Amino acid sequence: MTDADMIDDEQLAAEAWFRSLRDSLCAAFEALEDEGPGDGPPGRFVRTPWERPDPSGVPGGGGVMGLMKGRVFEKVGVNTSTVFGTFAPEFAKSIPGAEDDPSFFATGISLVAHMANPHVPAVHMNTRFLTTTRRWFGGGADLNPALPVNADTAEFKAAYRATCDAHGADYWNRYSKWCDEYFFVPHRNRHRGVGGIFYDRLEGDFAANLAFTQDVGKTLLDVFPELVRRHMYDPFSEEERIAQLRYRGLYAEFNLVYDRGTTFGLKTGGNVDAILMSLPPLARWD
Amino acid sequence: MTDADMIDDEQLAAEAWFRSLRDSLCAAFEALEDEGPGDGPPGRFVRTPWERPDPSGVPGGGGVMGLMKGRVFEKVGVNTSTVFGTFAPEFAKSIPGAEDDPSFFATGISLVAHMANPHVPAVHMNTRFLTTTRRWFGGGADLNPALPVNADTAEFKAAYRATCDAHGADYWNRYSKWCDEYFFVPHRNRHRGVGGIFYDRLEGDFAANLAFTQDVGKTLLDVFPELVRRHMYDPFSEEERIAQLRYRGLYAEFNLVYDRGTTFGLKTGGNVDAILMSLPPLARWD
Repeated sequence: MTDADMIDDEQLAAEAWFRSLRDSLCAAFEALEDEGPGDGPPGRFVRTPWERPDPSGVPGGGGVMGLMKGRVFEKVGVNTSTVFGTFAPEFAKSIPGAEDDPSFFATGISLVAHMANPHVPAVHMNTRFLTTTRRWFGGGADLNPALPVNADTAEFKAAYRATCDAHGADYWNRYSKWCDEYFFVPHRNRHRGVGGIFYDRLEGDFAANLAFTQDVGKTLLDVFPELVRRHMYDPFSEEERIAQLRYRGLYAEFNLVYDRGTTFGLKTGGNVDAILMSLPPLARWD
Repeated sequence: MTDADMIDDEQLAAEAWFRSLRDSLCAAFEALEDEGPGDGPPGRFVRTPWERPDPSGVPGGGGVMGLMKGRVFEKVGVNTSTVFGTFAPEFAKSIPGAEDDPSFFATGISLVAHMANPHVPAVHMNTRFLTTTRRWFGGGADLNPALPVNADTAEFKAAYRATCDAHGADYWNRYSKWCDEYFFVPHRNRHRGVGGIFYDRLEGDFAANLAFTQDVGKTLLDVFPELVRRHMYDPFSEEERIAQLRYRGLYAEFNLVYDRGTTFGLKTGGNVDAILMSLPPLARWD
């Protein structure tokens, strides 16, 4: 799968969904900018396309970074990418279905929102569809408040529990646990964030798995803007802002030390600006 | 080597030097706080001792974190540690002289200074003495200006070149090159810092190697305070402060993604506060 002409219907359908979700997310977040506090103009997304450099000269796809710096969203990235080609031999060994044939196709969306008001939780969502000789979906969504509010956490989890329950009896149990395991920061002996879901290698029925992945995105659209509206006008103290900047330090530590996507991308020549869009606009370690 | 009573004369001499250097550095930096700009009181170091947790119940040493937040030094850490015990079997394989006998002793000093004024360069210095069935020194010093000034870089390098030349004909060539290689950040295609020296596994004549390691520390005491005095009253713009905070983002990326000491320490249960004292007080990614 190294030629764009060979992209099949499933790959096209997944890619079209991620682009459509990107448009919905950007529109919803720009609407929050219009409603939000602040004297300056509401933020707007700036989209920057990039192409995947391919050493062999074969086109390898690319992506679009979407970045907004506003008055509600201090920094939010919504990136889509669709890349294809051949894995490096050493890496191919670790990827299901690429052991003998290193061809791959991957399409996905990644969202990280760092908020201006420390009472508004940060959020992360990422979903993707991968194709080797096998094909699977993966992704998740997790809430990252600097100042956790039990009601917000409960609402976020209830929304994702309902989404999981609609698609698989064991999904919530498995994917919420996977999220807790994945986002644990051993050196701090604490979690990044208060939970959500994390899933990977979801193989089998393409239509059913795409539908679940679509609902993971739609659930974020349903639940997150409501949490933003609830808190974006909350007054906050200098101490609360400092707590937010320190929490972002933990967020950056997790992404740079442990996150598989980040470290793999950095060490194998991915698009650095797109990968590191997840890093906070401002962070403190003191 | 798992008992403090068994520490020998070389180990004691190295440890005494690192503690003495720590005292000299703290005194020199506090003097700069007294001379520096700002209305607030001059900063003073706060020292916090820590003990190495040892699963087997045998005392494993510990260290002292020294942290100052001042008006010249926005955040500076000067840490000493002396730890001993037994390497984990998997790790022992990668350490010279520990392949068959995993006993070790390690003593050292680590300094990272993040400065308030963006025209004052940040600096890093670290020297250490390790003992397994072999024994060696390692360390280095490197200048990390957000806004490089050619004259400062030249002065810093000339000082370390003179120190190297006094101890070994090939030291400057080897150790300055090693520094450039070690502090390259592949994903940014640039270096952290403008250079200095980096050395490791300096075995053989203990007295000569200790003398070199002492001069690496003394050179920092000679050259760095002069650079601080030269720039600590420089006026600076908001843009220059932002450039400094962005440069610190690169600094944090290097330490969290690539630095061997940081990632090893985090993943093997070292003292987290001491390890991460290197992270900047405030950093930007935007």
